[in-house]
Amino acid sequence: MSGHVAKPSGTFEVLKTDAHSSARLGRLWTAHGPVDTPVFMPVGTQGTVKSLEPRDLIENGVQIILGNTYHLLLRPGMDVVSGCGGLHRFMGWDGPILTDSGGFQVFSLSNLRKVRENGVEFRSHIDGSTFFLGPIEAMAVQRGLGSDIAMCFDECPPYPCDPQTACQAVDKTLSWAALCRREARAPGQLVFGIVQGGEYAPLRERCARELVAMGFDGYAVGGVSVGEPEPVLLREIEDGVRHLPVERPRYVMGLGDFGQMAASVANGVDMFDCVMPTRHARNGSAFTRHGSYPVKAGEYKLDTRPVEEGCDCYACRHFTRAYIRHLLNVGEILGVRLLTIHNVRRYVTFMAEMRAALAAGAFEEWRSEWAARVQETKSKRSGE
Amino acid sequence: MSGHVAKPSGTFEVLKTDAHSSARLGRLWTAHGPVDTPVFMPVGTQGTVKSLEPRDLIENGVQIILGNTYHLLLRPGMDVVSGCGGLHRFMGWDGPILTDSGGFQVFSLSNLRKVRENGVEFRSHIDGSTFFLGPIEAMAVQRGLGSDIAMCFDECPPYPCDPQTACQAVDKTLSWAALCRREARAPGQLVFGIVQGGEYAPLRERCARELVAMGFDGYAVGGVSVGEPEPVLLREIEDGVRHLPVERPRYVMGLGDFGQMAASVANGVDMFDCVMPTRHARNGSAFTRHGSYPVKAGEYKLDTRPVEEGCDCYACRHFTRAYIRHLLNVGEILGVRLLTIHNVRRYVTFMAEMRAALAAGAFEEWRSEWAARVQETKSKRSGE
Repeated sequence: MSGHVAKPSGTFEVLKTDAHSSARLGRLWTAHGPVDTPVFMPVGTQGTVKSLEPRDLIENGVQIILGNTYHLLLRPGMDVVSGCGGLHRFMGWDGPILTDSGGFQVFSLSNLRKVRENGVEFRSHIDGSTFFLGPIEAMAVQRGLGSDIAMCFDECPPYPCDPQTACQAVDKTLSWAALCRREARAPGQLVFGIVQGGEYAPLRERCARELVAMGFDGYAVGGVSVGEPEPVLLREIEDGVRHLPVERPRYVMGLGDFGQMAASVANGVDMFDCVMPTRHARNGSAFTRHGSYPVKAGEYKLDTRPVEEGCDCYACRHFTRAYIRHLLNVGEILGVRLLTIHNVRRYVTFMAEMRAALAAGAFEEWRSEWAARVQETKSKRSGE
Repeated sequence: MSGHVAKPSGTFEVLKTDAHSSARLGRLWTAHGPVDTPVFMPVGTQGTVKSLEPRDLIENGVQIILGNTYHLLLRPGMDVVSGCGGLHRFMGWDGPILTDSGGFQVFSLSNLRKVRENGVEFRSHIDGSTFFLGPIEAMAVQRGLGSDIAMCFDECPPYPCDPQTACQAVDKTLSWAALCRREARAPGQLVFGIVQGGEYAPLRERCARELVAMGFDGYAVGGVSVGEPEPVLLREIEDGVRHLPVERPRYVMGLGDFGQMAASVANGVDMFDCVMPTRHARNGSAFTRHGSYPVKAGEYKLDTRPVEEGCDCYACRHFTRAYIRHLLNVGEILGVRLLTIHNVRRYVTFMAEMRAALAAGAFEEWRSEWAARVQETKSKRSGE
């Protein structure tokens, strides 16, 4: 546990606050150890961060991962995960796990949804079998998974969305949050409320205030990065975070763009998750401190440099772009795996550098440098 | 290098010979270190033992791997592998590598083959582009790959095959072998001749005797396990090996059945390769000391035992059948990878146990015990 004396689950230490923004350096304690914030959580949809083992996550410096209630409920099912001792033991990961509630997937993936007063009836997107997920069920599943942080079951409206629909989603989200808060929890399990409200600041404010009145261990901003333009997205986050207590962790769900994460941290956000590092690896894209690039491209055919020069990940220490490009182009699993190792390391390093800048009182300088470097690389490429 | 004083590449030490069979314990020295024999070589078709990294091979105790000339020639091409410093550097594997000559794939995979006096013109099975591979070209490719052991370019006839065709294939194989033997080699590179002759003992004998007269660093039996019944296969191996010198290593190409490998070792064979451990992992089959079984089967849904009880591989030390079954069933790459780690470890352990039995003068007892255990498990299963 990094040499710290363990603190009770739910303890959130704000270690330093930036002088020029709402950014802060923190540490959140969970039943499976501490998490240094701001933090990025790789997504382990089906009981694995795709292609990676727990030892890879540890080697990469990953402190916490996200598990998906919806996917695990469908396959392998709760009889299996609970029967195997919960998600930590099932997947062999002994660090902190945050689970979502399944709400987002129910509204985006499943078929034949019927929204009821107390939850949603839906058909599996895999085999059409029927499930019911509401606040009671979502908390029961997350209790069975044994995650360290459980999320409230919410209604996530699409973008764009009229004020009436957004308002109804907030109403539903709030009444479901009240139910989630009362449910039994796994030992030491924290529960976070989710701020909805679409692009409407008054709805975001009402949702945040009512959740805070109920009192949660942390708060998330949901329903962002669902297709809205970046200025709208950043305003939604600002509107959501503004009314949340500084002494509790704040989490923006599904956000993985480096610039957007840095902007969110400046607004006081502490936690992020996204499929970008893993999904982009499967598509052959590498993230670097200069932006991203397609490793499969012909120009890397004979390139004996690592995927990212200066990177300390296993893939960059041992293999060339030429080799990883070859593996990706011939469909070898190892190519995806090596690029996933790198991309996840890039995300972990991004947050670690951000935390170091916060500790040094140089967050804004670091953020500007990052943005300038990425912009310069973009200009160079388009100028070629 | 296992604490031994390094010996010149090509040195083959017969450390012990079995009292009741032709089996022997040996050590073959290559430019990249020693190989304890009998040995199994996992197949790294396209520059990777599928889903595994060099560190996985080392952790599993793999001493030597096989690379495929045909596949690497087609993709990524020799400009890339040579440009990246040869196969060892390209794939980050510093141990011994044996490369085949491409002959087998030219005759089994490629399209529109035209067999000429000095080689074969063929079209790539991937994009139809035209290549020419003969003894000169195959040796040049293997020199560029920088393998520790290069194989002669041979003609591998199908099964069944009439005596006339088999005889012509032997003629071609011998005249090509004479050319291969004269070609320049990578530093310390050994060259093995290949005994063809189909199911015809006199042809196998002639091929073996003429290759031995030319003098190679080692000898392989080729054209086996291409569809013939097991008694024919074992006789072919016996007929091929009988006329080979005891002081040189012997290798049966493409053989991976445990019982057949043990029988071949009893006939004096030292080396094997096969895609079975890796390919079966992709199909969800686990190899154990009791035989093989489909991990995907419903009966393992809640099975919290490792893939093989008592196995010391990473997969068995950390994960359950239930978890690996789940990963395989939802198409997660990690499932294939974990099962590959286990299967390769099972093959390495099989050979290590065989070598221990040879060292203890108990090879036949060990072989009988293995066969009895597998038979007993089969009977139990069919009796269920």
